Amino acid sequence: MTVLQTNPSAISDYARDMGARVEAFVREVVVPYEKDPRRDHHGAPTDELVMEMREKARAAGVLTPHIRDDGSHLTQRETAYVLIKSGLSPLGPLACNTFAPDEGNMYLIGHVGSPELKERFLDKLIDGTARSAFFMTEPADWGGAGSDPSMMKTTCRRDGNHWIVNGRKTFITGAQGAKVGIVMAASEEEDTKGGACMFLVDLPDEAIRIDEIPNTIDSSMPGGHATLTLDNLRIPADQMLGQPGEGFKYAQVRLSPARLSHCMRWLGACIRAHEIATDYACRREAFGKLLIDHEGVGFMLAQNKILIEQSELMIDWCASVLDTGSLGTVESSMTKVSVSEAMMTIADNCVQVMGGTGVTDRTIVEQVFREVRAFRIYDGPTEVHKWSLAKKIKREWKQAQEA
Amino acid sequence: MTVLQTNPSAISDYARDMGARVEAFVREVVVPYEKDPRRDHHGAPTDELVMEMREKARAAGVLTPHIRDDGSHLTQRETAYVLIKSGLSPLGPLACNTFAPDEGNMYLIGHVGSPELKERFLDKLIDGTARSAFFMTEPADWGGAGSDPSMMKTTCRRDGNHWIVNGRKTFITGAQGAKVGIVMAASEEEDTKGGACMFLVDLPDEAIRIDEIPNTIDSSMPGGHATLTLDNLRIPADQMLGQPGEGFKYAQVRLSPARLSHCMRWLGACIRAHEIATDYACRREAFGKLLIDHEGVGFMLAQNKILIEQSELMIDWCASVLDTGSLGTVESSMTKVSVSEAMMTIADNCVQVMGGTGVTDRTIVEQVFREVRAFRIYDGPTEVHKWSLAKKIKREWKQAQEA
Amino acid sequence: MTVLQTNPSAISDYARDMGARVEAFVREVVVPYEKDPRRDHHGAPTDELVMEMREKARAAGVLTPHIRDDGSHLTQRETAYVLIKSGLSPLGPLACNTFAPDEGNMYLIGHVGSPELKERFLDKLIDGTARSAFFMTEPADWGGAGSDPSMMKTTCRRDGNHWIVNGRKTFITGAQGAKVGIVMAASEEEDTKGGACMFLVDLPDEAIRIDEIPNTIDSSMPGGHATLTLDNLRIPADQMLGQPGEGFKYAQVRLSPARLSHCMRWLGACIRAHEIATDYACRREAFGKLLIDHEGVGFMLAQNKILIEQSELMIDWCASVLDTGSLGTVESSMTKVSVSEAMMTIADNCVQVMGGTGVTDRTIVEQVFREVRAFRIYDGPTEVHKWSLAKKIKREWKQAQEA
Amino acid sequence: MTVLQTNPSAISDYARDMGARVEAFVREVVVPYEKDPRRDHHGAPTDELVMEMREKARAAGVLTPHIRDDGSHLTQRETAYVLIKSGLSPLGPLACNTFAPDEGNMYLIGHVGSPELKERFLDKLIDGTARSAFFMTEPADWGGAGSDPSMMKTTCRRDGNHWIVNGRKTFITGAQGAKVGIVMAASEEEDTKGGACMFLVDLPDEAIRIDEIPNTIDSSMPGGHATLTLDNLRIPADQMLGQPGEGFKYAQVRLSPARLSHCMRWLGACIRAHEIATDYACRREAFGKLLIDHEGVGFMLAQNKILIEQSELMIDWCASVLDTGSLGTVESSMTKVSVSEAMMTIADNCVQVMGGTGVTDRTIVEQVFREVRAFRIYDGPTEVHKWSLAKKIKREWKQAQEA
Repeated sequence: MTVLQTNPSAISDYARDMGARVEAFVREVVVPYEKDPRRDHHGAPTDELVMEMREKARAAGVLTPHIRDDGSHLTQRETAYVLIKSGLSPLGPLACNTFAPDEGNMYLIGHVGSPELKERFLDKLIDGTARSAFFMTEPADWGGAGSDPSMMKTTCRRDGNHWIVNGRKTFITGAQGAKVGIVMAASEEEDTKGGACMFLVDLPDEAIRIDEIPNTIDSSMPGGHATLTLDNLRIPADQMLGQPGEGFKYAQVRLSPARLSHCMRWLGACIRAHEIATDYACRREAFGKLLIDHEGVGFMLAQNKILIEQSELMIDWCASVLDTGSLGTVESSMTKVSVSEAMMTIADNCVQVMGGTGVTDRTIVEQVFREVRAFRIYDGPTEVHKWSLAKKIKREWKQAQEA
Repeated sequence: MTVLQTNPSAISDYARDMGARVEAFVREVVVPYEKDPRRDHHGAPTDELVMEMREKARAAGVLTPHIRDDGSHLTQRETAYVLIKSGLSPLGPLACNTFAPDEGNMYLIGHVGSPELKERFLDKLIDGTARSAFFMTEPADWGGAGSDPSMMKTTCRRDGNHWIVNGRKTFITGAQGAKVGIVMAASEEEDTKGGACMFLVDLPDEAIRIDEIPNTIDSSMPGGHATLTLDNLRIPADQMLGQPGEGFKYAQVRLSPARLSHCMRWLGACIRAHEIATDYACRREAFGKLLIDHEGVGFMLAQNKILIEQSELMIDWCASVLDTGSLGTVESSMTKVSVSEAMMTIADNCVQVMGGTGVTDRTIVEQVFREVRAFRIYDGPTEVHKWSLAKKIKREWKQAQEA
Repeated sequence: MTVLQTNPSAISDYARDMGARVEAFVREVVVPYEKDPRRDHHGAPTDELVMEMREKARAAGVLTPHIRDDGSHLTQRETAYVLIKSGLSPLGPLACNTFAPDEGNMYLIGHVGSPELKERFLDKLIDGTARSAFFMTEPADWGGAGSDPSMMKTTCRRDGNHWIVNGRKTFITGAQGAKVGIVMAASEEEDTKGGACMFLVDLPDEAIRIDEIPNTIDSSMPGGHATLTLDNLRIPADQMLGQPGEGFKYAQVRLSPARLSHCMRWLGACIRAHEIATDYACRREAFGKLLIDHEGVGFMLAQNKILIEQSELMIDWCASVLDTGSLGTVESSMTKVSVSEAMMTIADNCVQVMGGTGVTDRTIVEQVFREVRAFRIYDGPTEVHKWSLAKKIKREWKQAQEA
Repeated sequence: MTVLQTNPSAISDYARDMGARVEAFVREVVVPYEKDPRRDHHGAPTDELVMEMREKARAAGVLTPHIRDDGSHLTQRETAYVLIKSGLSPLGPLACNTFAPDEGNMYLIGHVGSPELKERFLDKLIDGTARSAFFMTEPADWGGAGSDPSMMKTTCRRDGNHWIVNGRKTFITGAQGAKVGIVMAASEEEDTKGGACMFLVDLPDEAIRIDEIPNTIDSSMPGGHATLTLDNLRIPADQMLGQPGEGFKYAQVRLSPARLSHCMRWLGACIRAHEIATDYACRREAFGKLLIDHEGVGFMLAQNKILIEQSELMIDWCASVLDTGSLGTVESSMTKVSVSEAMMTIADNCVQVMGGTGVTDRTIVEQVFREVRAFRIYDGPTEVHKWSLAKKIKREWKQAQEA
């Protein structure tokens, strides 16, 4: 594997060492759990299984590997180096506590939260003893906010020293079983009208009712993706994350790194799927020779090799932009489209190379294919990113004309 | 829906009327069963559920609709007309008894079986009271026959008035729960060496041991796809289907129609998925307008419309070739590649148009996507068909040179 | 070649015989002209060369083969049968007088023209002694009508017994050298405001000034694609084609058959390119075997074989819809997108199979690639067709809702 | 333009400054020459035009910008930085003397040539006063070496103090008009049997006969791509480049950098094509709004933006590998496939966005499309690279098994 062999100087010795340990841990300890039957109805590992793996990660010194003991965060390029390796098994990010949505939630609280809120909500997430959920998207049949956040219909209003939140949310990954929630709502207060607020809440809360957890094509996320009703949810004002009306801005802070870390983890899984397919093609014969000696198969693996490199480079590039302090909105859009579409091809090729075996759960290839399919929609469908890139191109053209 | 509006003259009044009834039955009676929770571990409907739907199909006069009461079979073009409609729900072919592998098995027994064998094994299949399985492909890790039938390792040898079969089989769809099996094995007898034999057997049989039924990306087929060991399976000689050593020839008889009927059924499912995605896009708003008014979405649906028509035409064309009595091997290869790849695009577009909703089981769109993915491998992966088409092109070139 | 082997009953003996003669003529007589050096700056054959070939076509009885001696037109399905064969050389349609824009212009005058106009303008076109041009699209830098005809800026107004036309036109194929022009202009008269008029004019006319004939990627069309100014062009009122204000309607009459005949001719060229590439692949060795025995090459040819069949079927289907008397606007959009995009893949594969030889003018493959590239834009870019199909899908959904 | 904004530290101030000057020169001085009519039959600029531009490049200090005055070569990453900018016009590399095949030929002689050979043959190339050609590939109809160098049929044998070369070559870019030739031939001498030799020769030489210069789809290379016969070409032994029998090794030295510099130059051209298409889309209206506000158009430009970034990253990565001293054979194969295929999409999108205008020579977009099409074959077709990558994947798998 050639993970991020480029620009080695950008990766500190600490991160390099951590990456090596994460890779060894995932390959040796986590991979055997891929056959563990403890799964919820949605196919995701149960919390019991997750916590068992985390104990081992803690012992191996690879729990929450992107955050140092002093609370400081690896650079994004280092994070890429480590998170790609944690993704070598779909269970790896859960075991190492580098998974979504928690990785992004930790990042957000770490950047916006007050010391008090961090102590109360962040520490247990970093410690890997609790899971969290991010309450943002809303049901289509309710006319709520999907890819377009300006359509947010869940509202919050002040009530003395509390805020009252009402509305509906959908696709709230991990809500079931989470202990920490970040709730986003449109402000009804005069002074922050048009803006949004974010709140940290303890879960479960009886004012947050899970209506449904649909089965989905992916199956890696404990708790699945819940649809919920927030029915007069009452939150103490000091549990607001940051300032009132600034919610959309904070969502932007979370946006690019979270989007990018998805790319990191699933690229790891695609690298592994490619290893598995290669191994299959180097052993299985048909029509008189090994599959890999058939150009029809060998070319698919060659294309994978190219796409993996390309995806690593896009991730590393976007990470380097984020490391300058930029929000990286455009770069993470470009990277998300490029990497998720490349990964779809990689995963599809792996399935195809393996024939009948490729569509069974005998290997993780079939799961990776399903996960990547969902990823082309999660964190903004390809089309929404292209739409915003087209707007950017037009803006840049206008600026160039005026100059 | 414009199903097979072309060449209406090719469809008899009987078939046209049957098609209309099948469509009405599937839309009105079968679709509501899509939410029925009776599913096996693999996600397929239980036999109880299947039999309940079949009772209703029988009552509606749409059970085994491609075979007339006198046992005669509709033409392939008529079959296409009816089977596409039966596929409008993934449950439709099960309810109407037009599903795989039984549809192909009935076809084969109908063409090759003696009157005695038909009475004993075929009648209950046509009657919809029993399911069947076709024992052909073999495990990769055993070096057996996958896409390349010449690698068949399961053997049969004569023993007095019986044959003894030994070997392993994999991807035996529906074996669990089936009452009829068609078993294929390489002959070890001197006079038919290099040839294969086919046998009809009653199932279950203790000499046929199910080793494993893996989960697979698809979930429409009762009994899943089993891996089995045939351990000194003893079969009376009069249960041989056709003549000894002719097994590969009979497999060819089954091949094209079975391959084509897969295209028919799944095209029906894709047409329905397209209807669902269209409905979603015509109701859901984002970024200030209906999804369908976004070109990014509208163009995907336009592409679907084109691909659906194209697939219908390929199916109808191949059916017309089969109706001339030709084996249609080349034509069914071309059609299978063209249609399965087009359907992958259709299903992928439907998922993408529906965003988050597209990856949930709230609609059948997510399932259709998974089924079509598997279909690109089942009945010969795209690459195997292209391989054989390239051989055909070379042969034709040589013949033209010699002429 | 399997051209339109389907539905043979749809092709009369007359058309079948004509198709055979056209194919023989193109292969034996026209193909050798492909090396003839008489070309204009744009790469198209000179009128001298065209007329020389036409004399031979006349002698062979294959001139204007889609129109019978009594002036009646073959059905569209028969036309497809014949025109595909005329396209087996890029010079074939010119030699046989089945080329664009004349074929479409003849069709239009034949359907809308009065007996007097037919005698004066149509007869010499059918006779192959004159060429014609269709003046519709307008320059981008003038803000005129490109794909969107509602933007037409060229105007016409009555002046006694004449009409006066002013404006600019671009991409007027064949204008240079044409003897007949069909001019389209937006009416400025009160009673037909918002409508357009069509006029037949003798060419050249000094009021029609050729401003520029750009070089273009394609090179099959004599006269190239001119940009012109119509400066007080004065046309006798009896040269109006049809009724005032009905121009857009007449454009629709021409639209689908003209679009479809493009598909026919270029499919013929793609079939020939595929033959050439196949021949190359069956003779040239690399890395120890014939190119065609490399799956990387054989799969491309296999894909071509599928795409050719698919394109034939789409053309035949659309033709059958037109033969019912329908305008076929939706069907011809679907067919144009499907066929032109498929042909791009076919032509691209042929170039790639032939390696360095594929990008030279040693064979017609390189030209076919360039022509097909242009065809994806001519007669409506793919995107415009998808746009109008999406509108159609929405309309159909609405109608279904209301029903 | 964001050319190589990543890793700015890798680019020295010298190279950064040179890049800025090259870009300014190309945009201000070279671009106006794009309309200059001095072209040969093949469409390439005449040597007169080339030399006129070079005088201006010399005056602007941007001639042969990748080689410093002291003869030292920029790093490959710096070369990328500069050559992409030189490619912003198809004429730029000719004007700046960064074009193929000379750039690669200079590189090769610089690395392998003796001081005497460098003085005699290299200096005038660096000085931009002479052009050169590389005689390697051989005709298909002769069964010679195309993509597979082991098929080389042109031979050399010793004759006293000379070597005699006999054979045929094809696709010898720039041979017509070149003053320097690098000739490659299979050795017939016992001690170097199976190896090849390289020779430097003065051109023209009457023993080298140009048989044909076909027109090709590309038109940027002066002299076109000649087919030649080497008829008892007699070369003094001291004009051998390097050692006898080592020719294939030297070809490897040239291979990766030459392949990569093709990517650099044409990426510059694609960036410019994208600028032109963006400008068009931001000015032209259709169906009620600017083209860029149609998602169908905006998405194509968004995809371009992503593919340009991706291509820059692949080039920069491969360059960084070459800068370590590695031959970079695998990396340059991966980069060549990835970049050339991405550029095909970019160029195709640009043509499509511009509609009719896109297929004319009013802008360079049409030419860039044609050049990129050829580039997918030049320097190894995509399929040959995938073939060798598949072999590499198998070797790596075997090594991992043994470890």
